[in-house]
Amino acid sequence: MSRQLKGIAASPGYAIAKVITLKGARPAPTRVSVTNAAEEQERFRQAVERSKVELEAIRAMTEQRLGADKAEIFEGHLMLLEDPELIDAAIEKIADEFINAEYALHEVAGTFIEVLESMDNELLRGRAADIRDIAGRVTSHLLGEPHQDLSQIHDTCIIIAEDLAPSDTAQLNLDAVQGFVTAIGSRTSHSAIMARSLDVSAIVGVGAEVLNIPSGTNVIMDAIEGLIIIDPTSEQLQAYESKKQQYESRKTELAKLKEMPTIASDGARVELAANIGQTVDVVKAIENGAEGIGLFRTEFLYMGRDSFPSEAEQTESYKYVLESMKGKPVVIRTMDIGGDKELPYLELPKESNPFLGLRALRFCLTREDLFRTQLRALLRASRYGNLKIMFPMIAVLSELREAKRLLEEERSKLVAEGVEIAENIEVGMMIEVPAAAIAADLFAKEVDFFSIGTNDLIQYTMAADRMNDTVSYLYQPCHPVILRLVRMVIRAAEAEGKWVGMCGEMAGDPNAVPLLLGLGLHEFSMSAGSILATRELIGQLSQAEWAKIAEEAILMQTQEEVIQHVQEHVKGAKTVC
Amino acid sequence: MSRQLKGIAASPGYAIAKVITLKGARPAPTRVSVTNAAEEQERFRQAVERSKVELEAIRAMTEQRLGADKAEIFEGHLMLLEDPELIDAAIEKIADEFINAEYALHEVAGTFIEVLESMDNELLRGRAADIRDIAGRVTSHLLGEPHQDLSQIHDTCIIIAEDLAPSDTAQLNLDAVQGFVTAIGSRTSHSAIMARSLDVSAIVGVGAEVLNIPSGTNVIMDAIEGLIIIDPTSEQLQAYESKKQQYESRKTELAKLKEMPTIASDGARVELAANIGQTVDVVKAIENGAEGIGLFRTEFLYMGRDSFPSEAEQTESYKYVLESMKGKPVVIRTMDIGGDKELPYLELPKESNPFLGLRALRFCLTREDLFRTQLRALLRASRYGNLKIMFPMIAVLSELREAKRLLEEERSKLVAEGVEIAENIEVGMMIEVPAAAIAADLFAKEVDFFSIGTNDLIQYTMAADRMNDTVSYLYQPCHPVILRLVRMVIRAAEAEGKWVGMCGEMAGDPNAVPLLLGLGLHEFSMSAGSILATRELIGQLSQAEWAKIAEEAILMQTQEEVIQHVQEHVKGAKTVC
Repeated sequence: MSRQLKGIAASPGYAIAKVITLKGARPAPTRVSVTNAAEEQERFRQAVERSKVELEAIRAMTEQRLGADKAEIFEGHLMLLEDPELIDAAIEKIADEFINAEYALHEVAGTFIEVLESMDNELLRGRAADIRDIAGRVTSHLLGEPHQDLSQIHDTCIIIAEDLAPSDTAQLNLDAVQGFVTAIGSRTSHSAIMARSLDVSAIVGVGAEVLNIPSGTNVIMDAIEGLIIIDPTSEQLQAYESKKQQYESRKTELAKLKEMPTIASDGARVELAANIGQTVDVVKAIENGAEGIGLFRTEFLYMGRDSFPSEAEQTESYKYVLESMKGKPVVIRTMDIGGDKELPYLELPKESNPFLGLRALRFCLTREDLFRTQLRALLRASRYGNLKIMFPMIAVLSELREAKRLLEEERSKLVAEGVEIAENIEVGMMIEVPAAAIAADLFAKEVDFFSIGTNDLIQYTMAADRMNDTVSYLYQPCHPVILRLVRMVIRAAEAEGKWVGMCGEMAGDPNAVPLLLGLGLHEFSMSAGSILATRELIGQLSQAEWAKIAEEAILMQTQEEVIQHVQEHVKGAKTVC
Repeated sequence: MSRQLKGIAASPGYAIAKVITLKGARPAPTRVSVTNAAEEQERFRQAVERSKVELEAIRAMTEQRLGADKAEIFEGHLMLLEDPELIDAAIEKIADEFINAEYALHEVAGTFIEVLESMDNELLRGRAADIRDIAGRVTSHLLGEPHQDLSQIHDTCIIIAEDLAPSDTAQLNLDAVQGFVTAIGSRTSHSAIMARSLDVSAIVGVGAEVLNIPSGTNVIMDAIEGLIIIDPTSEQLQAYESKKQQYESRKTELAKLKEMPTIASDGARVELAANIGQTVDVVKAIENGAEGIGLFRTEFLYMGRDSFPSEAEQTESYKYVLESMKGKPVVIRTMDIGGDKELPYLELPKESNPFLGLRALRFCLTREDLFRTQLRALLRASRYGNLKIMFPMIAVLSELREAKRLLEEERSKLVAEGVEIAENIEVGMMIEVPAAAIAADLFAKEVDFFSIGTNDLIQYTMAADRMNDTVSYLYQPCHPVILRLVRMVIRAAEAEGKWVGMCGEMAGDPNAVPLLLGLGLHEFSMSAGSILATRELIGQLSQAEWAKIAEEAILMQTQEEVIQHVQEHVKGAKTVC
């Protein structure tokens, strides 16, 4: 009889194959005294050098296979191999304590890993995994045990491992490896991100139990639901073979829409853009046919580090995204720090209700120094593409006016310094505070565009923290009240000849998309993975017809009625993925 | 030269007099061994009995002077003198440890006081003060030192003390005592509440320094600003004599409006009601000419205790308020537990954003047992007056419908039990979640009235916690966005022939009142102390004229412009207190 395990679907797809279960982590080295410390140090240096050569090869291969941005991880690894706090510290420790190199490295790396993992920050934990990865590689060379080379797997299989380092994932022979399953990890761990880039199915965080599945066992991987079916029955095999086929043919079909514009059945044009959180995400946005970046969350630049990024560093990041998008619009949101996004190096006072507190632009206006640096970096990068600057969390006009004033001041200063700045950079704002939606007519006179941030707008309108399970029933994107607000914002913008986008999850929600099309939303920004299916859906809808249906929906009483109404009218359109 | 100290203005007014500084707290008793424990126990019992006799006299005097409700405090004290955990425990301790009664009582009472004071709950801290009060009284009798009798003060004076027990305050000879100042205490401590009932000026929480002012010193008490001016200059004396006179003549003038209806200059009628938080507050509401209770916050019934109040206890409280109001409308809000209001005996999970969490009706719908008990008590009390039931924190129709369903179920059950219930109890809801304001047209079909809770409505609309200093600049009751929402709600209600009240602080805000009158608000509910001044203000305004001014204000961009607009038009009306 078959058994099932459940994990986190980290990279979607189906796989059916025998598994190869990799041996677990090497046991920790024991402390051994050495008499000749200099000799031991030399042995360590050589192991580091060999690791560098190996990593450089992986980096080059990854660059060729996945592009420069994906290879960046290994540049980070190579830098770690030159990091004095790690490498020189281990070298010193060998001489100080007359101990073996394996143990010295283990101790030094262990301290870093422990500190980083104790942080409540996914990015720092990712850094810990990087250190573990390179320490493991150096130790392999010290022990003369070759590092597991996954590029040498040639049989069709699913790989099971405790964790896969990015360097392991990058080397996978994808002609053979159908997918991988790990005991630890999360949707945003490096190996998960790498899996999505490589387009290989992955399920992570299944728990240690998964390591007990012996190599050679037949397994179905359902990386849509996060299921591992062990020793499947023939009925299960049949069912999944068919699911897999459907999934793949649907993928091929959607891929055809990649280079197409987004046009409703009656010829109305809208723009489908991607939300990104890191510079490298721009690659996935392009791969999925994004017509622009509707939201670049710049918080990421500030996280996973121990000080604020400099003007030059920020300029580089913005420039990278702008250049990558080759003239397509890129909406960059100024930092949304505060609320649930804390920075370890920025001591913000603890708030009783952080979602109702000093966050985003409110925070920026109290820390002009940081804000001005970001504005200058944005202005400097502007000439590399089609930049639009967006301010978050505005409630009242004075906030917008102050932000614009600071932007103009920095622009004048840069011009005086002789810096080249793009003409006509559009300046817009998020609509995520109810007050801003209700007063959209006032704001529309003073911005170039709006982007409705539905995640927060719904949360504040309903006075319900969507992360709080006990009240998440109030997170209702299709509630008539939310539709009323969206209509209010779009009408206010149109009266002033401005455009309106949406960058909350609602913009990619198949129940909401037809209504938003009907209400006249101009730009839909969503996670890259939803773009093609949304393009397909919109292609089957008539904007004029949905304008009527949306007006009917707005008059309804509950979200349930609205969704039913949408589904009745969308029938006939292909099911959205 | 004069000096100043600053405290909390606990009961408003001015006083100018020499001070009498009462001696500080008695030093803690020392532990003395006794050989005859039975004799010591007897001595303790006698002291308790004498204290009872004394307290009973104070209780009777207070009842005669201030009414039964104010005398309730002393019933509480008398009950403490029979509390086995306190009195019997002290008696046992005497025998167990062969120690003196003073020390035994000090130890037993001390444990209670310490626990109660450590709680982050003002009410429990109040209970600690009660225990300290009665322990002090019993100790006086044990020591044969007569308890300070403040009724024997006959010289015109201001009293300074570390703290005044309610029993001290109740006995004050108000022909002589012009006001009192205490080192400790808060606006809601028992002595502060008692001072407001007695209409004697009080400043509390000034700090220990105030006890250094020697008896006989000339002092000005400014219990509007919370200032104590020591050895005032003749200029100060002159200035304050004039302030005092103005204040008192204004008070007399306003008092004339007590029995009058609230009528605008063009004859439009509105209702001015009081917000109350405790049953006893109804007295102050009546004294200040309230035409009804616009908000009875029932949380108080649940606080300062260690278990939920029974159906019978709640019925008594509701009945008391309904009967006291003699047929005038009493809007009772079902419990608003959660958010910032926690109960020690109810373990609610910690929330990251409690204001966006499981509070008020949301909580009630997860704890039907508690909610049904409250609904039953309300229905049982309904025949004693003009009850209106109000549900808080509703965002979507399903919540209102569920609350009404439970109410109807309990009504049917009570009818089946033969309980007499008033006909036509109005059922309404708070408008405090933006979603409810925006969908007021839908709700208006299913309720009898709305009451706009502006404190929360503004907070959610602006996405700013008003208790959070860094964002409190966004708490803008006169912002055009808030006026738009208020108008939306009033129009929606009028279309269905329903009435609209307001029970947030905005309803008593002199800048907002004219606009609210103009927008057609039907009922203004505020703290009792603001009613008479608001009645006077409305008497000077024409509703028809303010309807036009309010429409102009709604089209403005900022709160500053609105307030300026109001003040320009309100000029000529007397300044509001």
